[in-house]
Amino acid sequence: MRTKPVPRNAFYAQSGGVTAVINASACGVIETCRKHRRHIGKVYAGRHGILGALTEDLIDTSLESAADIRALRHTPSGAFGSARYKLKKYEDNPAQYERLIEVFKAHDIGYFFYNGGGDSADTCLKVSQLAETLGYPLTAIHVPKTVDNDLPITDCCPGFGSVAKYVAVSIREAGFDVASMARTSTKVFVMEVMGRHAGWIAAAGGLAARKAGDAPHIILFPEMIFHEERFLARVKECVEKYGYCAIVVSEGVRNAEGKFLADAGTRDAFGHAQLGGVGPVVAQLVKDKLGYKYHWAVADYLQRAARHIASKVDVEQAYAVGKAAVEFAVKGHHAVMPAIVRTSNRPYRWKIGMAPLDKVANVEKMLPKDFITRDGYGITEKARRYLAPLIRGEDPPPYKDGLPRYVRLKNVAVPKKLPTEFKV
Amino acid sequence: MRTKPVPRNAFYAQSGGVTAVINASACGVIETCRKHRRHIGKVYAGRHGILGALTEDLIDTSLESAADIRALRHTPSGAFGSARYKLKKYEDNPAQYERLIEVFKAHDIGYFFYNGGGDSADTCLKVSQLAETLGYPLTAIHVPKTVDNDLPITDCCPGFGSVAKYVAVSIREAGFDVASMARTSTKVFVMEVMGRHAGWIAAAGGLAARKAGDAPHIILFPEMIFHEERFLARVKECVEKYGYCAIVVSEGVRNAEGKFLADAGTRDAFGHAQLGGVGPVVAQLVKDKLGYKYHWAVADYLQRAARHIASKVDVEQAYAVGKAAVEFAVKGHHAVMPAIVRTSNRPYRWKIGMAPLDKVANVEKMLPKDFITRDGYGITEKARRYLAPLIRGEDPPPYKDGLPRYVRLKNVAVPKKLPTEFKV
Repeated sequence: MRTKPVPRNAFYAQSGGVTAVINASACGVIETCRKHRRHIGKVYAGRHGILGALTEDLIDTSLESAADIRALRHTPSGAFGSARYKLKKYEDNPAQYERLIEVFKAHDIGYFFYNGGGDSADTCLKVSQLAETLGYPLTAIHVPKTVDNDLPITDCCPGFGSVAKYVAVSIREAGFDVASMARTSTKVFVMEVMGRHAGWIAAAGGLAARKAGDAPHIILFPEMIFHEERFLARVKECVEKYGYCAIVVSEGVRNAEGKFLADAGTRDAFGHAQLGGVGPVVAQLVKDKLGYKYHWAVADYLQRAARHIASKVDVEQAYAVGKAAVEFAVKGHHAVMPAIVRTSNRPYRWKIGMAPLDKVANVEKMLPKDFITRDGYGITEKARRYLAPLIRGEDPPPYKDGLPRYVRLKNVAVPKKLPTEFKV
Repeated sequence: MRTKPVPRNAFYAQSGGVTAVINASACGVIETCRKHRRHIGKVYAGRHGILGALTEDLIDTSLESAADIRALRHTPSGAFGSARYKLKKYEDNPAQYERLIEVFKAHDIGYFFYNGGGDSADTCLKVSQLAETLGYPLTAIHVPKTVDNDLPITDCCPGFGSVAKYVAVSIREAGFDVASMARTSTKVFVMEVMGRHAGWIAAAGGLAARKAGDAPHIILFPEMIFHEERFLARVKECVEKYGYCAIVVSEGVRNAEGKFLADAGTRDAFGHAQLGGVGPVVAQLVKDKLGYKYHWAVADYLQRAARHIASKVDVEQAYAVGKAAVEFAVKGHHAVMPAIVRTSNRPYRWKIGMAPLDKVANVEKMLPKDFITRDGYGITEKARRYLAPLIRGEDPPPYKDGLPRYVRLKNVAVPKKLPTEFKV
């Protein structure tokens, strides 16, 4: 006779910068937990990520309706609040880790689902190891998320595909606009995109160009040193050849001295450095040196929040990693991360694999050198083969009165059980 | 016995800043012309707007397939090229006007459809008057277009509704994003939108907020003098009350001295004024005075090119004014503009009316004072009643491989007939 497992509660938290689809992962986690009541009791979410665990500020997701949890699938941002908060090394602040275990113990938490990027994979691993050391039974699973697309092992990261789609759609649309104005007005358009360390997002802009002359004509990658003269020559060439020039620039572009271009330019009225924005710096440079009329855009959060134009593939993968995390957990795996495995390019096919956390934590996947064309301003066919499937399909949210109907959960707090406060 | 009319050709041109739906008007004009072959021969489009007429650079739209003309309905930008080029007064440059008539005569153009804003309404009127003076039979009809929504008589302007929708959707999405990050990271988000003279577009951002605490919390209108202290106090209040503050700022906001805020702030590395962008200036002010971490976005052309999130009402109206222009023309009207007439608010209903061009030209419709709340930072219920229907409905373009499938026409030139060149 098999013994009936005693269900234990789950803790779920969102970490770091949010995305258009991190809530789709939350949806996957919570819906799947609700299907495994033999193993999992309630799902408690951390209010503002790991801070919610440290301060015992837990949200009882069992009070949310099935419809509202379903609506997370089409709602951007972090429904429970996220946090930019990196736990210190255990040696430097053991109290933090011990507090986590104390809170988990108080609320009978047996499952820890941590939804974030590289840093949170590391945290997740440490928590898992500590629980083991302390003899506290805890299944810790990392759920991948990052627009930066820089996690190893997984073929791509949920969140990236939707930013990629936003950037490709936007530069195509702006390119059409500028093309029609260029004769008498704007000749150069610069769009700044995210990606301080790696050019994954900038590269995605290249998907908008299918043939010579299509926007974008130039991509400035953080991987390539910015050469002013070569860049200006290329801009001039494009304007003369196509009538205009559309440029995607990564916020992380640096000059030969290793300085961010965004830092090199502006001073405010008080002489303070930097209002931010490499887009305007590049645009102004073009104006000063070539005299072309310019416009620039900085999409900033719009690009990662734009659930209205999310990639269907991305939404499905975000949901799938959430679901798989729970399935791994109930099967007894721990210290792992569901990973996207690409099994075929044409047609694009993927499945969920399993990555051990110690192989994920603290490893950054950079944009391969052979994704960038020899001249440094475009993407190769290899990059295109990798990127194209990730932006495929649309999955529009429901609309009401012309606006997307995004859900706001009730987010009711679980009554505290610990007598102690914890200062973060 | 009725005499059979002799069909004459039509000239169509796009003028000024393009929009997500000006091509839907082009589609309306061309498709409707094709249905009136008894009156109208070919439709010639001006390459780069009125410049195409002056330089006899005409595009033969009869060489485009029905499917490609249909695809204009979902393609942003100006398919034939637009121009920022204002004709001088007749007295100052009679040669310009005489050249137009000369080109029209050479190509047997009996219909002049001019698609633009206030300036082009004026041009259209003048061309109509001059043709009459010179005894050249020409039916001139203006087709309204402007994201600025500042034409009189018409209830709204095609192009505006889609920008309005883009702005409302974007600030809602960014608001959700910031709300989830605010505890440990960004507390203030600033989104700059178009509208140098009037706050119509900024006002549309207000549609995203349905109840207290919803983004945007503050709208900065060009109609309101920017008071730094009051503004900062409001930002602080929002952050303390809601945890964050989302701000929509019109590019046209001015300080008490009447200076654009965008001009008041930045200097580049060489001490030149202005990299542009009131968004970063406002964000930096918040940082300097209140210390809050900020992010800012400048959507620029993205907002008016974003056909992917166009308002269905806007697309339908853009098509309808193009169609009506041709119908007016074949009925013998001239020097008029099809106008949107709102016949009911709930349910929203509209029809096409007719506005005489001399009542349209050189009149700017400003944002009514009672559209702005008493505190100057929000929109009233009256504004909401006016704006809400204009963003209603979605009309997504077809997609291929994850990207909108926008059409590029062949744009074949009509052989020139005149021996003379014209310098513009």
